This record gives sequence, structure tokens and C-alpha cells, in this order.
Amino acid sequence: MSRQYHVDGELVDRADATVHVEDRGFRYGDAAFETCRAYGGRVFLWDRHRDRLAATCETLGMAGAVPHDLRERVDATLVANDLREAYVRVSVTRGVQPGKLTPERDVDPTVVVYAESLPRGGTAGDPIWDGPATVRSVGTRRIPDDALPVDAKTHNYLNGILARIELRGSDADESLMCDSDGYVAEGATSNVFFLDAGTLKTPERGTILPGITREAVLEAAERIGVPVETGRYTVDDVANAAEAFLTNTTWELRPLGRLDGTAIGGGPVTARLRAAYDELVDRRCYTG
Amino acid sequence: MSRQYHVDGELVDRADATVHVEDRGFRYGDAAFETCRAYGGRVFLWDRHRDRLAATCETLGMAGAVPHDLRERVDATLVANDLREAYVRVSVTRGVQPGKLTPERDVDPTVVVYAESLPRGGTAGDPIWDGPATVRSVGTRRIPDDALPVDAKTHNYLNGILARIELRGSDADESLMCDSDGYVAEGATSNVFFLDAGTLKTPERGTILPGITREAVLEAAERIGVPVETGRYTVDDVANAAEAFLTNTTWELRPLGRLDGTAIGGGPVTARLRAAYDELVDRRCYTG
Repeated sequence: MSRQYHVDGELVDRADATVHVEDRGFRYGDAAFETCRAYGGRVFLWDRHRDRLAATCETLGMAGAVPHDLRERVDATLVANDLREAYVRVSVTRGVQPGKLTPERDVDPTVVVYAESLPRGGTAGDPIWDGPATVRSVGTRRIPDDALPVDAKTHNYLNGILARIELRGSDADESLMCDSDGYVAEGATSNVFFLDAGTLKTPERGTILPGITREAVLEAAERIGVPVETGRYTVDDVANAAEAFLTNTTWELRPLGRLDGTAIGGGPVTARLRAAYDELVDRRCYTG
Repeated sequence: MSRQYHVDGELVDRADATVHVEDRGFRYGDAAFETCRAYGGRVFLWDRHRDRLAATCETLGMAGAVPHDLRERVDATLVANDLREAYVRVSVTRGVQPGKLTPERDVDPTVVVYAESLPRGGTAGDPIWDGPATVRSVGTRRIPDDALPVDAKTHNYLNGILARIELRGSDADESLMCDSDGYVAEGATSNVFFLDAGTLKTPERGTILPGITREAVLEAAERIGVPVETGRYTVDDVANAAEAFLTNTTWELRPLGRLDGTAIGGGPVTARLRAAYDELVDRRCYTG
């Protein structure tokens, strides 16, 4: 059977999973999205993803665009594709509107759910990533909050794409972007953490998309007694760290192997945090 | 007959004008576009639009993505829709690639041409706009060049959309965005010009999308002997001007009626420049 997508309220075959070229999601990237993981058939931290999706829609002036039955659409997509361990992408666009840039308040959103197999990683299985990340700091700066609110997760993703294109010809697989002032912001698809004298540090909110995995790691650190600091840091601060790792929904916690050629890697604290994250996944998705 | 679109190399009915949800143009706004006008069946300043489209594709790391027969596709779309005076939108996306953010070098672009009737404006007909623009300066800042190259015209258009959403509840129909330093950059879909002691002034390159209509107006000013200066200006500089107008492909030259409540409007120099622009359209599209 062909892979099934959930588009605009219906399950459809992959070949029919299309949007109209007049859809503002296509014309302007005028859309919110979330990347989630399902473990054991349950979407991990669903409420947080749904809340952030709703917050992005509100930032984009289309509060209420997230359909009430979105969870059911996601579950139906998982079932239709016979998936229990999966990557899930949910998009909500402003839909088709008359051909003007200024959006109308009345929105008929286009909702797309996409799911594909993604075996569980972490300590309970093989991680999705091949090994520690090889990272380079790039010239592309993170779009500042006053131009595009950093909390919003949208289809305007060229900033991160250009940061990745800068890696062409190198062996790096993730880009580290700085903010307009030159302080570390985030990777193209990840948040960055590092250990400095026993304290776990990560860039503060304001120039980053605050990842849901980042939040879960900060909470896990608190739970297992690792001191945490958020602030503004330089690339050298990260490069000189005892341990460093990246987080996102699909990678979970991924050791940062090399930054601009300097070896860092994970270590005992990274390992403890990965175990704590795995426990959270177990508790939320595999037990009870 | 249904409106015809040119999608991926073929003319199709409007209902079939779709792109796959895996297309990077949809997923990430990973696409270049141009807005053109056809007058008398000929696309005005086509070479400049094609060159800028190619330059945007190069900036996005997909040099060569513009198909060699793009002009023919545009002409075929005009003929199929029986249009001589038209708005034309051309998009080139990075197409469908495996589900990773980092783009592959090998690109099978998706090309979409859209055309709709747009009677000739300017002094030779009724302008497309209803009257002078009512403009407000907004808090949304223009995305800086180091985050997303300002010369690139892409489907990542949320910056301008957020600037327009700020106008909700006001009578304004265009937003004036400043750069990160607080100097005037551009409108959400237009460049801004103003007259100061007989000199035509407009923000310099570096924080603006240098519009093709803007270039044509600068050349027209030179031709008819209006002194020109490009530089960095404040909102007050514009508000205190003797005349002001906005430019883009569809509006051509549109008087700026009010800025943050201050009346400005066109005037004799704006009228001369509009006439010079009209002459250029005549010469390029209606004669010979």
C-alpha cells in the first residue's frame, strides 16, 4: 500500500498529497509547523507541540487555525501507515486567499500530516544519527526576533537552509548560527548545550527557537541535579567546553563531536542526561 | 474555460495547479520568484526579471535552476488565458528532495507560472491602485542581509506579511519597514522614494530588495534630469518630504498619500516620472 498522508482533513495516497499553488503556504511559506516523534504509537510531548503550533499560528495572526481534531488526524496517519515508532510533521497553512499579500482574518487553513518510520533511538536503541555531530560556525546570522519572531516555527526556513549550504565542501553536518551580535544562537535544526566546570549551559531565549527537546533536557537536568545556566555565549565558549551536545526532536541528545575542527564530544553528564531523557520517553510513551 | 496555469512544464487547469507537499517550495518556502507585468502581450523588462530570478536561485545554491524555455512558458500561459495586459508570477522551487534540510546539489526544480488580467495603469489608463497609498511605519524590522540576502526574492515572505498584519485596525494599506538600525528600508511589497529640495531620494542598496521598477525609475530620473541620491533616511525624512511615492511592478509609481497620519502625496516631479515610466512601457511593449 502506498504511504498515506493526511491532507486537508482526509487520508490520501502519497501521489495525491498536494496543495494548490495559490495556497499561501506555497506562495509565501505562510504556515506553521511542528516536528514530533511517536514512540510506541504515542506522540511524545504532544501537548507541548500542539501548544507551540497554536502559539505560532497566533504570532502569524491566525489564532484558532489549529483544528480541534489534530491529535486524531495524527493518530489516524500513524495507524494508516502502520507506524508506532515514527517521525511526524504537522503543518498548518493560511490556506488559499485572494491574491493579496495582506492576509484576511477569515482563515480556512490547510492542514498536512506526514509520518514516516523512525525507530526509537537513545540508549534503548540505535540513535537516528550516525555518530556525533560535526559542526561548523557559519556566517549566516540567525534572523533576529524583531524581523521574524524567533519563537515561531514556520515554513520560512531559508535562514537554516542557507546556513546548511555554507557547509558544502566540508565534512560538517550541522551549522552553528550566531545572532546579529555574534553570540551563539542555535544550529540550523538544533539547540546547543555545553558543559563548563560542571554547569550545563545553553543560549538563553530571545535569539533561538526554544526547542521542546531543549526544554525537556533543562527539566531533566534539574531532576538529576545538574546545575544549569542560560545566557549569551561565544563560539569559543562552546569549543572550549568539556562536553557538548545538540538537541532536537529527531536527534534527541546528540553529542557534538567537533566544532570548527576542535574535538569536544559527549561525556558523563551528556550520558546521564540522555538516560534521563530516555526515562521520560519510557514513562510517557511505553508504560501505564 | 478554466484559467490555465503552467506547472512543471505543462499547461493545466486551475484545479490541477498543485505541488506535492514534499516539494521544498511548500515545506520551507525554498523557492525564488518574480512578479512581472505584461503590456500588450509582452512582458515588460523580462531580461531583468529573468536575471534576478537566476541570481536568487544562485544565492539559494541552485544556480541553473531557471529553465531555458521560461520565457516561452510565460508566453504560452498568456496565450492560453487570452491575456495581453496581465500580472505574471513565476516561481522556481528546489523541487522534491529526500526529507533532509540540507539541499542536494542535484535539483529538479518545480516551475510555476501564474497569470491574471491586469489592465494597463499609469497615465495611459486607470492605475491598478485605488488612490494614493496610506502608509504606516511598523515595528517589524526588515530581515538583515546577513540572515537572508536582501537581493534574493524568495517564498520566505513572512517578514512582509507580519508587517502587513500590524496594519490591522488602521486604514493603512502599506507598511514601511526600517532596518535593524532604524533607517527606512522598504514597504512590504514596494520601494519608497521622496523629494527633498528637488532631489529624488531613496534608500540605498544593502537593506532593501532592489526592485526592478525602482531601477527603472532611477534611470528615468536621470533621463529627464531629476537629481538622485541614495542613502540612509529616517521615517521623518520621508514624512517631511515635498512629494513621495512607492514603486513596484504592479503599482508602477503610486503616490504616497499619508505616512503615519502626515499628508505627503505626489506632485509635479512624481507626475513627470510617471510619464517617463509610461513612455518606457510604450517604447518597450507597444511600439516596433
